[in-house]
Amino acid sequence: MTRPHSTVADSTALPGEFDRIARYFRPLATGLPGALELRDDAALLALPADEELVVTTDAMVAGVHFFPDDPPDDIAAKLLRVNLSDLAAMGATPYAYTLVTVLPRTVGANWLAAFAAGLKADQVRYGIHLAGGDSVSTAGPVVLMVTAFGRLPTGQAILRSGARPGDDLYVSGSIGDAALGLRLEAGTLRDVATTDDRQALIARLRRPEPRLSLGQALRGVASAAADISDGLLADVGHIASASGVAVVLEAARVPLSPAARRLFALHHSESPTLVLSGGDDYELVFTAPPDHARAVSAAASLAGVPVQRIGHITATSADTPAGAVTVLDSTGIPLPLTERGWSHW
Amino acid sequence: MTRPHSTVADSTALPGEFDRIARYFRPLATGLPGALELRDDAALLALPADEELVVTTDAMVAGVHFFPDDPPDDIAAKLLRVNLSDLAAMGATPYAYTLVTVLPRTVGANWLAAFAAGLKADQVRYGIHLAGGDSVSTAGPVVLMVTAFGRLPTGQAILRSGARPGDDLYVSGSIGDAALGLRLEAGTLRDVATTDDRQALIARLRRPEPRLSLGQALRGVASAAADISDGLLADVGHIASASGVAVVLEAARVPLSPAARRLFALHHSESPTLVLSGGDDYELVFTAPPDHARAVSAAASLAGVPVQRIGHITATSADTPAGAVTVLDSTGIPLPLTERGWSHW
Repeated sequence: MTRPHSTVADSTALPGEFDRIARYFRPLATGLPGALELRDDAALLALPADEELVVTTDAMVAGVHFFPDDPPDDIAAKLLRVNLSDLAAMGATPYAYTLVTVLPRTVGANWLAAFAAGLKADQVRYGIHLAGGDSVSTAGPVVLMVTAFGRLPTGQAILRSGARPGDDLYVSGSIGDAALGLRLEAGTLRDVATTDDRQALIARLRRPEPRLSLGQALRGVASAAADISDGLLADVGHIASASGVAVVLEAARVPLSPAARRLFALHHSESPTLVLSGGDDYELVFTAPPDHARAVSAAASLAGVPVQRIGHITATSADTPAGAVTVLDSTGIPLPLTERGWSHW
Repeated sequence: MTRPHSTVADSTALPGEFDRIARYFRPLATGLPGALELRDDAALLALPADEELVVTTDAMVAGVHFFPDDPPDDIAAKLLRVNLSDLAAMGATPYAYTLVTVLPRTVGANWLAAFAAGLKADQVRYGIHLAGGDSVSTAGPVVLMVTAFGRLPTGQAILRSGARPGDDLYVSGSIGDAALGLRLEAGTLRDVATTDDRQALIARLRRPEPRLSLGQALRGVASAAADISDGLLADVGHIASASGVAVVLEAARVPLSPAARRLFALHHSESPTLVLSGGDDYELVFTAPPDHARAVSAAASLAGVPVQRIGHITATSADTPAGAVTVLDSTGIPLPLTERGWSHW
């Protein structure tokens, strides 16, 4: 991150571990009997006989994945949502999560209260409950970790490995907003058309919207899916690698938000490769056979999320081995690309 | 920790995230098809219809929960085993785990290779597989996090809340060794009877033995159980609080290892309250009705772990509210205790 690292400046004291759990985390576990009020050694998760559990885990480090002085409820929202986005990519329904907080003494009761309120709001929004966790101290930066659990009818997970030559490639929503939001946050990009545009782009970075309804609607429709965390090209590449196929992506078809379009109109110098390689959009990128095109449209309508076809899957060749992504410009000429995605900062 | 903080000194470079996963963590996931080779957004965990999933998560921070220059395979073993110990306390069978590594640049390929080898050895030892995870970078200390999954016949979990007045209180193995090991490690305690004693006590700290077989054998036998991570008195107090009962604990009955006995014979100044309040032993403390005494012995024999009755459960009273633990000395006089356990460092 290019903005100077601020530390959390919280004048209140950090409560002890048992107080932290009792005051801030136990109230988040009331909706799940198997959480055992966070009073036991472990939690119990039951599952209907015809379902399987989907498990994902993601960590965020202050100064790496978020700014230490970001609002604590935004940090909480991002922490949960990046995990829920992984569940969305598999087509799963959110169920529960465990939380680990690694906290320095610069974090106090005020920060914890706001952080817990952010978790609570998203628990209600997404129908998920805290099942357990751990809270420890550190001399280093805040580290936050969520393991999220989803449910799926057995055998219906949408995997990255199911793409086949001839399938269409789709993406949901709009791409590149979070990367632009990060540049605005970091101050390396200053001018936007309107204040609303600035807020909209930064909101995409801070509060991504996991495409859960779309993911669930795509079960049995999509042949493969991933969420876009590393960047569109990188995550398309992950699908291609896992499926043993190659991809042709038409850059001009990649959907941009109105705010991003206006920003690019102002800044002709900004490379559109930012859109292809910028991460953190948490949209879904997925494939489906051409005869599922109507079902894809129906799923998008059901979920209320726009979906755009942006390319197709091909067999591998000498020039395009498994995992290769060829990006065509608006005239059909392959774009030379030096990087496929980004490493997180 | 009182020993000066060393940092991990690894002359090899830290591989990038994708390399870390491919080289060190993917080989740990080969035994579990639902791990999807760590190539997908999430893992899939199936469960037989008559079982439920047990979930626990524990984090360790360098300089707080382990010494940064501890051998990486010891760190890996402790990380897995403190989580497995929680599964043991519920009576569960290990199934899978997810892993998050938060790594500074002072950690390199050599450290990672030794750490992964430690995980692999314990995966084989305990029959558990890596299901997924995340690996991120930090400017701070190493943080490691495991979420462990166990399986249980539905409804058979041993909870902390099941202790009833009249039940006997038992503990497995020997108590206090890890606290003595920590003092030896930290240099605040120097003399032991023999080098073997020193190694044995430090090994209890670094490589706790989760009492999985005992926990499983106690299903349907014990009325409540917890593992001893915070300290014997603290964890007995947790059972008492969760069960709404009080406890009488006979200090002279608490089992000590031969090494601990010899150490106390050398150091009369060392307080035996260390045994009562020292944490990290990862033994099981549990309760059972008196008419289950033979079944308790049978479970201990089956598991090959000694078990000692150390007290009993009483109803609450004005002087002994829920959670109260009265400790009697060898003549039956209550010991005055100022602290019930310890906060981790």
